[in-house]
Amino acid sequence: MARRIFMGADIGGTNMRTALVDEHGQILHQRRSPTNIHYGAEDTCMRFIAECRSLVEKALSYGCTVQAIGVGIAGKIDRHQGRVLFSPHLPSMKDFPLASKIRKALNTAVIVENDANAFGLGENWVGLGSGIKNWIGLTLGTGVGGCLILDGNLWRGDDLGFVGEAGHMIVSSGGPQCACGLRGCLETHTSGSALRAGADPLTDKTIERGSLADLAQTMQADPEDVYRRACEGDPWAQNLFDHMGWALGLAIANLFTFLGIRHAIIGGGVSAAWDRFIDPLKTSLVAHSSMLPPEQMVIKRSALGDDAALIGASRLAIEHSLTLHSVGC
Amino acid sequence: MARRIFMGADIGGTNMRTALVDEHGQILHQRRSPTNIHYGAEDTCMRFIAECRSLVEKALSYGCTVQAIGVGIAGKIDRHQGRVLFSPHLPSMKDFPLASKIRKALNTAVIVENDANAFGLGENWVGLGSGIKNWIGLTLGTGVGGCLILDGNLWRGDDLGFVGEAGHMIVSSGGPQCACGLRGCLETHTSGSALRAGADPLTDKTIERGSLADLAQTMQADPEDVYRRACEGDPWAQNLFDHMGWALGLAIANLFTFLGIRHAIIGGGVSAAWDRFIDPLKTSLVAHSSMLPPEQMVIKRSALGDDAALIGASRLAIEHSLTLHSVGC
Repeated sequence: MARRIFMGADIGGTNMRTALVDEHGQILHQRRSPTNIHYGAEDTCMRFIAECRSLVEKALSYGCTVQAIGVGIAGKIDRHQGRVLFSPHLPSMKDFPLASKIRKALNTAVIVENDANAFGLGENWVGLGSGIKNWIGLTLGTGVGGCLILDGNLWRGDDLGFVGEAGHMIVSSGGPQCACGLRGCLETHTSGSALRAGADPLTDKTIERGSLADLAQTMQADPEDVYRRACEGDPWAQNLFDHMGWALGLAIANLFTFLGIRHAIIGGGVSAAWDRFIDPLKTSLVAHSSMLPPEQMVIKRSALGDDAALIGASRLAIEHSLTLHSVGC
Repeated sequence: MARRIFMGADIGGTNMRTALVDEHGQILHQRRSPTNIHYGAEDTCMRFIAECRSLVEKALSYGCTVQAIGVGIAGKIDRHQGRVLFSPHLPSMKDFPLASKIRKALNTAVIVENDANAFGLGENWVGLGSGIKNWIGLTLGTGVGGCLILDGNLWRGDDLGFVGEAGHMIVSSGGPQCACGLRGCLETHTSGSALRAGADPLTDKTIERGSLADLAQTMQADPEDVYRRACEGDPWAQNLFDHMGWALGLAIANLFTFLGIRHAIIGGGVSAAWDRFIDPLKTSLVAHSSMLPPEQMVIKRSALGDDAALIGASRLAIEHSLTLHSVGC
């Protein structure tokens, strides 16, 4: 009998990634290619399907058949329909029937989920979350996502198409313009986009709180470059990470205060700059918390790194596959 | 056999209330007296016990015996020990063994809980929350409390002694000084204390956002007086309620966005000014929400009014009594 294998995928604003994952959450093989959303949703989808097809063939070379595909993607998702309702960093993918397109092309069961929820499922399965009952997850990438694990399970709220959207919690009402249309969202202070905006070399001034994303249209520098400059002692670059830490600490403090919990796990590409923002984050967390003693606060960096959402998406594929089998499909 | 009856109590910063409640959540008799915390915790506790004793005797006149007493009180509570760890508006009741003192005096089972959690249990049992799976509760009184009902049950988080503390979520970092020691908490914009501060007749200027609680030491006017003035068309008084609505809308928007839910129930004494702040609240809620369409947002005023916490505390007494009986006590 062929070994059972699953596919997890993560379609981000910058890259689309796919992986073959076994039943123990182990990645066997993975691929990455640019998302290039500016060619339109159909084009992105076709290239994504081609990526998936390559992995289906790879699976055959292992003597395995892909049982189901789980896809994580930023934005508001109708997971029952497998439809992307709205994705702020993939704007052309609006009300887009992603699952059915992949399913038709590959004749495989497909489930679509918000990428930060996929991150949460991955960390909860084989990452740092597996031993923690209640925790908040934050993903720092092109945008900022979030998830909530309660009693060991992914919290889905009222199943409204969104949940855990920490990036669109307001930390500075009337603050910088966000991709979502509001002002002062956490994402405008904390994302890769915010770092790019703040790092504009033409802006030769100290960045003030709340001014980062107002500069978003400039987009001159990579977050990696800002990180390198901060590590080299550039006070202006470090100031950007100080500000990121301030905003993250404030948002996490508010969630700890209301939820009565004390653990957070942070992942996403921008979390690679951990050593630049964790101290300011902790300072802000303590400064904005009156209920929880500092020694009880636990903020961890994702153990799975970039792979958390891939692994979590494959976990969804496993669960989806089990559901299909249990109803005789 | 004597009819089973329970006692619910609510010790607030202004009044302490006690009630006899039956198994269906019906209040049979109730009492109210001033808290007068400035005489100290022991004195307040003794007067509270005297109130309870009066009701125990009243119960006997109904041919009933009080089975257990549930007490709601603002602050951080160790509910397993029945100890008030810290109460911002009853500062002398610090690390105070409230349950054991009442138990010894009245020889009755006693359970102590945060008052906003008691509010949530009351609304969830026989109020507006009973038909809603997931909702946020806010109580506007001397301070601002909160609770969270998930899957029809009171959420207790990691059982850290606090949960649902909406009043101490930061809505304006660096804003007005709060009783908890931080700055910019929701409570500094939204509570009875904030209204008193803002209503100082000596302060003949337009109140700006964030300046209300900085004036808290003045405490010149009653919230009821501010309400009356706003109803009479005083733009300055209405401005205070506009500001209250703004802060509440922002906090609820952030919670809806992260929790992926869409219902909130607001109670507490200051919610009597509902018609003055609900429109600004809704405007702010919409302005600070990018994920949830306005038509899906539901904000309701407590159906039980001042009685919600009393009824919820008695619900705790019932559950506590059942637990005691099930373990043979």
